[in-house]
Amino acid sequence: MTRVFNFSAGPATLPEPVLRQAAEEMLDWHGSGMSVMEMSHRGKEFIAIHAEAEKLLRELMAIPANYKVLFLQGGAIGQNAFVPMNLLRGKAGADYVNTGEWSKKSLKEAGKYCSVNVAASAEAGHFTSVPKQDSWKLDPNAAYVHICSNETIGGVEYHWTPDTGSVPLVADMSSNILSRPVDVSRYGLIYGGAQKNIGPSGLTIVIVRDDLIGQALPITPSAFDLKTQADNDSMYNTPPTYAIYIAGLTFQWLKSNGGLAAMEVHNRAKAALLYDYLDSSSFYRNPVAREDRSLMNVPFKLRDDALDAAFLKGAEERGMLQLKGHRSVGGMRASIYNAMPVDGVKALVAYMKEFEASHG
Amino acid sequence: MTRVFNFSAGPATLPEPVLRQAAEEMLDWHGSGMSVMEMSHRGKEFIAIHAEAEKLLRELMAIPANYKVLFLQGGAIGQNAFVPMNLLRGKAGADYVNTGEWSKKSLKEAGKYCSVNVAASAEAGHFTSVPKQDSWKLDPNAAYVHICSNETIGGVEYHWTPDTGSVPLVADMSSNILSRPVDVSRYGLIYGGAQKNIGPSGLTIVIVRDDLIGQALPITPSAFDLKTQADNDSMYNTPPTYAIYIAGLTFQWLKSNGGLAAMEVHNRAKAALLYDYLDSSSFYRNPVAREDRSLMNVPFKLRDDALDAAFLKGAEERGMLQLKGHRSVGGMRASIYNAMPVDGVKALVAYMKEFEASHG
Repeated sequence: MTRVFNFSAGPATLPEPVLRQAAEEMLDWHGSGMSVMEMSHRGKEFIAIHAEAEKLLRELMAIPANYKVLFLQGGAIGQNAFVPMNLLRGKAGADYVNTGEWSKKSLKEAGKYCSVNVAASAEAGHFTSVPKQDSWKLDPNAAYVHICSNETIGGVEYHWTPDTGSVPLVADMSSNILSRPVDVSRYGLIYGGAQKNIGPSGLTIVIVRDDLIGQALPITPSAFDLKTQADNDSMYNTPPTYAIYIAGLTFQWLKSNGGLAAMEVHNRAKAALLYDYLDSSSFYRNPVAREDRSLMNVPFKLRDDALDAAFLKGAEERGMLQLKGHRSVGGMRASIYNAMPVDGVKALVAYMKEFEASHG
Repeated sequence: MTRVFNFSAGPATLPEPVLRQAAEEMLDWHGSGMSVMEMSHRGKEFIAIHAEAEKLLRELMAIPANYKVLFLQGGAIGQNAFVPMNLLRGKAGADYVNTGEWSKKSLKEAGKYCSVNVAASAEAGHFTSVPKQDSWKLDPNAAYVHICSNETIGGVEYHWTPDTGSVPLVADMSSNILSRPVDVSRYGLIYGGAQKNIGPSGLTIVIVRDDLIGQALPITPSAFDLKTQADNDSMYNTPPTYAIYIAGLTFQWLKSNGGLAAMEVHNRAKAALLYDYLDSSSFYRNPVAREDRSLMNVPFKLRDDALDAAFLKGAEERGMLQLKGHRSVGGMRASIYNAMPVDGVKALVAYMKEFEASHG
């Protein structure tokens, strides 16, 4: 068996120890005689798995006690609808900051449920930076301010936390959750699909300050009413049990590896290897403002896009997969989430140098 | 390793060959160097897995070409909202037949989006039968007629297909899908959570006649707009990839074991073992009308419910788990889905006899 270096933007590479443990426990979890997949979500075994996953996530992110942690379904794209349904709280609209394709999707969906104020947008600059906070035109009556903390396609990341005063800050953290410490108390609601830094797709994490829930619009589907789910420990409907189990194994792996502070060091080191090389080369380029570059997703272009196919073919031959950029922007993209080892990034940079030498 | 007999109502026991294959392929699917969990849903490997799962499901259920097969999230409880959102098609209301806790949940949720006509209800008889069709008061202007084809809690199942004329028939088949052949062409839409007869929780199957979609209410979340998902091969958002892979393995197992006709023989034989014994005993009883008894979920009570705890303890000691009935009805429940081997039911009946002999 040869494992590849998988640079997919998500679903994405997972820690090998997590996969090994999952394989070992597949037919018989801890002597229960059952796979986790087969367990009733109401049984003592799964309730313990679920509670442990929540406990570890609370510990890793230092989530304050007045926040609910929910394990739901529907992905971040689902939450684009369920956030306004749950958080409008009688208000007419919400503020959105537009930093790329994902925040655009969020604000477009929110427009079905409320008036949307685009408080700031990086679109004119082709989404290569995060608008400085002093340029944001916030509405003091907004129900919340929504950001996408890391744009997976554009490779743009917030390296600071916006100050939204008494208006709750909502963040789609799908692609940088758990990559470094965040101060959860600065947020009203954090959501994210699990398929980048956590586990299998089909699991959606929602972390929400408890005073913000309980006023969902009457049209909110019960399975996505945050109060209903909070009151039922995320089990108003059957949760994605196996995905929660894998998430718990990943949380344990993160903890064993030093938690989020250590993960930040690891992720900064990997990103520096790539960006430093990109900046030293005239053959490759990354268009993002230095202070807003993503530690998770590194898009880059070759000097001549006629070479893209050859670059990708050579990468595949060397066991480096999924480096093709998103179809909306072209070029390349290396997603280097928590579980991407530094050796994967070193191998990529070595190959990029080799390719530049032979095609530059 | 000792595997138990797991009578859980769902998530439920899965075929052991499926679990073995999943364990073997966990770190490296077919020489790809990746777990299925790690694969981009846009990559050629996962697209092949997804297409194969759909092809097998179409083959097993003989799904006509004018039906879309969608692999979504949110469970049947999610669909309770998304069905009216998608299928009202400008009409004011829908018909619901109430045969138990699950159909009650469905019609209550639908009431958020439209007027609900309860065309028939078995509630007066404590949900122990399916109302005969000649008693149904259908509204000819209804957008659709909704049934729950098998009530997991009450153990009541339709053994016939309602005739709703030109009004589309919608069925929540969560707990009996794939247990026997059905004529899909008689339905407008079939939906179900995967966690009984298919695979892990977190995957929802929707089979819908293509002329019924495309008129979703404006409030429908994009991720749950059936037309949007159909136009994107269920990949408008990231689908629950690993659950789809396991579902595909289960579909392959079903095909290798003779498909749904063989499954019906297997399931009838298992159910007969249990019901025949229940009917021969005065110590146990099942309250459901004989012609409406579920082949999947067999609820029963002991003569004296003070013996319930001893019964459950003895069952656990013999490796038979999750026999406790739903909290809303008490007593016992044996869920005997496709993957429950006949030996599991034989072991249960043997234990029931033994328990009756010593406590009767």
